[in-house]
Amino acid sequence: MNTSKSLNMTMLCDFYELTMGNGYFKGGYRDRITYFDLYFRAVPDKGGYAIAAGLEQVVEYIENLHFDPEDIQYLRDRNMFDEEFLTYLENFKFTGDIYAIPEGTPVFPNEPLITVRAPAIQTQLIETFLLLTVNHQSLIATKASRIVRAAQGRRVLEFGARRAQGASGAVDGARAAYIGGCAGTACVLSDQLYGVPAAGTMAHAWVQMFDTELDAFRTYCQVYPQNAVLLVDTYNTLKSGIPNAIKAFNEVLKPMGITKCGIRLDSGDIAYLTKEARKMLDEAGWETCEITVSNSLDEIIIQDLILQGAQIDAFGVGERLITARSEPVFGGVYKLVAVENEQGEIIPKIKLSENVAKITTPQFKKMYRLIDNADGMAIGDWMCTWDETVEDNLNGDGSLTIFDPDATWKTKTIKDFTARPLQVQVYKDGKLVYDLPKLQEIQAYCKQELDIMWDSVKRFDNPHNYYVDLSNKLWFTKHELLTHHK
Amino acid sequence: MNTSKSLNMTMLCDFYELTMGNGYFKGGYRDRITYFDLYFRAVPDKGGYAIAAGLEQVVEYIENLHFDPEDIQYLRDRNMFDEEFLTYLENFKFTGDIYAIPEGTPVFPNEPLITVRAPAIQTQLIETFLLLTVNHQSLIATKASRIVRAAQGRRVLEFGARRAQGASGAVDGARAAYIGGCAGTACVLSDQLYGVPAAGTMAHAWVQMFDTELDAFRTYCQVYPQNAVLLVDTYNTLKSGIPNAIKAFNEVLKPMGITKCGIRLDSGDIAYLTKEARKMLDEAGWETCEITVSNSLDEIIIQDLILQGAQIDAFGVGERLITARSEPVFGGVYKLVAVENEQGEIIPKIKLSENVAKITTPQFKKMYRLIDNADGMAIGDWMCTWDETVEDNLNGDGSLTIFDPDATWKTKTIKDFTARPLQVQVYKDGKLVYDLPKLQEIQAYCKQELDIMWDSVKRFDNPHNYYVDLSNKLWFTKHELLTHHK
Repeated sequence: MNTSKSLNMTMLCDFYELTMGNGYFKGGYRDRITYFDLYFRAVPDKGGYAIAAGLEQVVEYIENLHFDPEDIQYLRDRNMFDEEFLTYLENFKFTGDIYAIPEGTPVFPNEPLITVRAPAIQTQLIETFLLLTVNHQSLIATKASRIVRAAQGRRVLEFGARRAQGASGAVDGARAAYIGGCAGTACVLSDQLYGVPAAGTMAHAWVQMFDTELDAFRTYCQVYPQNAVLLVDTYNTLKSGIPNAIKAFNEVLKPMGITKCGIRLDSGDIAYLTKEARKMLDEAGWETCEITVSNSLDEIIIQDLILQGAQIDAFGVGERLITARSEPVFGGVYKLVAVENEQGEIIPKIKLSENVAKITTPQFKKMYRLIDNADGMAIGDWMCTWDETVEDNLNGDGSLTIFDPDATWKTKTIKDFTARPLQVQVYKDGKLVYDLPKLQEIQAYCKQELDIMWDSVKRFDNPHNYYVDLSNKLWFTKHELLTHHK
Repeated sequence: MNTSKSLNMTMLCDFYELTMGNGYFKGGYRDRITYFDLYFRAVPDKGGYAIAAGLEQVVEYIENLHFDPEDIQYLRDRNMFDEEFLTYLENFKFTGDIYAIPEGTPVFPNEPLITVRAPAIQTQLIETFLLLTVNHQSLIATKASRIVRAAQGRRVLEFGARRAQGASGAVDGARAAYIGGCAGTACVLSDQLYGVPAAGTMAHAWVQMFDTELDAFRTYCQVYPQNAVLLVDTYNTLKSGIPNAIKAFNEVLKPMGITKCGIRLDSGDIAYLTKEARKMLDEAGWETCEITVSNSLDEIIIQDLILQGAQIDAFGVGERLITARSEPVFGGVYKLVAVENEQGEIIPKIKLSENVAKITTPQFKKMYRLIDNADGMAIGDWMCTWDETVEDNLNGDGSLTIFDPDATWKTKTIKDFTARPLQVQVYKDGKLVYDLPKLQEIQAYCKQELDIMWDSVKRFDNPHNYYVDLSNKLWFTKHELLTHHK
């Protein structure tokens, strides 16, 4: 499947969305208002936080949501759907409300990243695309955030298009990697569509094309004197690659007064080779030459390279970022949490499971991030039902008592805090009411929001479990439904 | 990024393809004919074989290859490219030759899945898209083949769209899964675009929407009596789900004389629950009711479920197939193997590496699969230079002596065999000359080609290393270049 920015993805759904839709239509549930939460149950790589991403593509999708005549014909040919339902689909559009946690926000298990309120057929039809988009981009943004953290201020560049899982895996993946903190990408289309800064210089083929490595380097410096990053490992990094790079810099760049240049290494013992390369470059007077490395990097290898004293200015990270190789699935789910009855009352719904972690938290909900006014750091998140406020829950002295929903005896009373709403309204009655931030703003916001998370939440090994607590009312709502269905 | 079948993906390339292209243009290499091989170095999951896939999407891409005016403008705005080069890109089209191993073929490390012969700028520009497409689809087809093997004749359905890495990850992934042997998919768009049979019935939300589980099941059976597969684990599988399913079948289907129906389980102890479910269904006279299971399945879990005597007719496999979770990267590379000089002679090229496995096999090559005439089974594959034939290499008695390229003392002499060319020509002078097979044909061909592979090659643990041998001439060509660059 080839790809473009603005095409109709309405048919990218699971078949059961359509059979259920037709069933709701025929069963009289066509106008039944439903609430669905999109949330995840565990952070990949046993990490302490995830980064929400993909909302902009959800909006693009909703804006384009419609069935073309050939889609209707395809469905008609299946001989499963009523003509009345097909006519309804011809005029299908989204008329509901969507609430979401903005892209770039650090998020935690069981938090509704997106809540959709709409008639049953609509909430159901958009399930697959919402999930795949948010799952994919949150996965990559989260992985990128880990890798950028490991690089300790050095630039991380996304180089993975060729190993991505399909075209959108590459292009949207580079976008998500940028949200998570990457400085840029190799993927041109991701720059053109989304403004992720794209760059790149040469592959081994460039070096092989010329009679000698020196010719290859010299020509490149002549064509791109302002942007000469030479790949030095085609034949022998220390014996030919770096000496030839220095020769080319001296011959071509020096007379032009250019000091900015670079080399890239893509194989071998990176720690050793970069240390030797740094010495050789410095001795030749090219202290300004930057060293970029690539070759199956991830947060673990980057941490260790730095520990070994490798001399690296930038990391090019490919397959292990663009596929989140260590754990390539972000397990977001989309579950019915409430319906409205004929009187417009919101009735919470639950899905049970023998696996306790798979039991849903019912009801239309609101989320707050609790910030300590003393140091500006995040204390935890707090979830309540749609019709209550933080104020309703305060103790007499203005403090708030929060408790672990899985271990209710674990309580904590907090004072002098700010409760910041986590969600924004994105759609109201089918109209887009949210001003999508620019990609650069999302990246900056992500960095800023991570800065208020304690290091203990961000560390790789055995991170601190960030609190996501429920209000009393919400906890009792869940408990009541659990007991009822027993 | 949203997606469609026939859009221009020309800009889905790595930035260095463009800087190199411009460099070749300015450096006088514009018309230099180059040969690139696309191949992989290791089978994912330490398996014994991979399944080639993605060629049809490569053809779609090549057919649409062109730069739109806004693409040229984007490049102009980068201030790195010559106007002359941009003018050349305005009229850019592919004029070269492409050879490929057909989709669905079992393939092995170091075999050129695709060989491209074209002017340097062209071979370079198409690198990223070719790699990402073939890497992605071969990854998923290979994983699907393993899962289908584990299911031992039971149907495997692809259910993973919601956890896929982006839209094309879902849609093209379902196509690849079908090539690898899946019976169908849940993804509607994959059916509409590619003809992968799509099906599906209900999610938990359907059951939750109704006042009672029985109401939900009854309504579904009434709407879809021919296709009633009921999800029985929303509340309690054995105490409510299966008894209610039986009630609904009895009430709605039985009077209509319908015996075909099914249940699906998505949680809990699948082995135990399916055995109990089978008993309950059989006792109620619903021996014809099929049992489908889902929930984080893969080839390992499926093998074990069967070992436990689970009563399963079909497996719905999601995230672990659509992302190839156990090893989500197919490490295909694209390397320069030869150039033509001004006299049109083909000059082999090599890329060295400290890592022996990363050294390329130079030269424009041909591939054969050697088939034993006695039993019809594959003996191994054999690679030679473009200008030699199997006949040139035969011993006096008509036998062929093959040897392991890494351990040349390991030889084997084979007689009474057929050497079947593995590659087809797909493009000749920029014209499509290959008749793309239908998807169903590719799936059937894949099955047939796997049937001539020994079980020892297909087993999961420690599979037999299938021979991919080089002709004498090819081996010496490689050896000579290795020595030359030392």
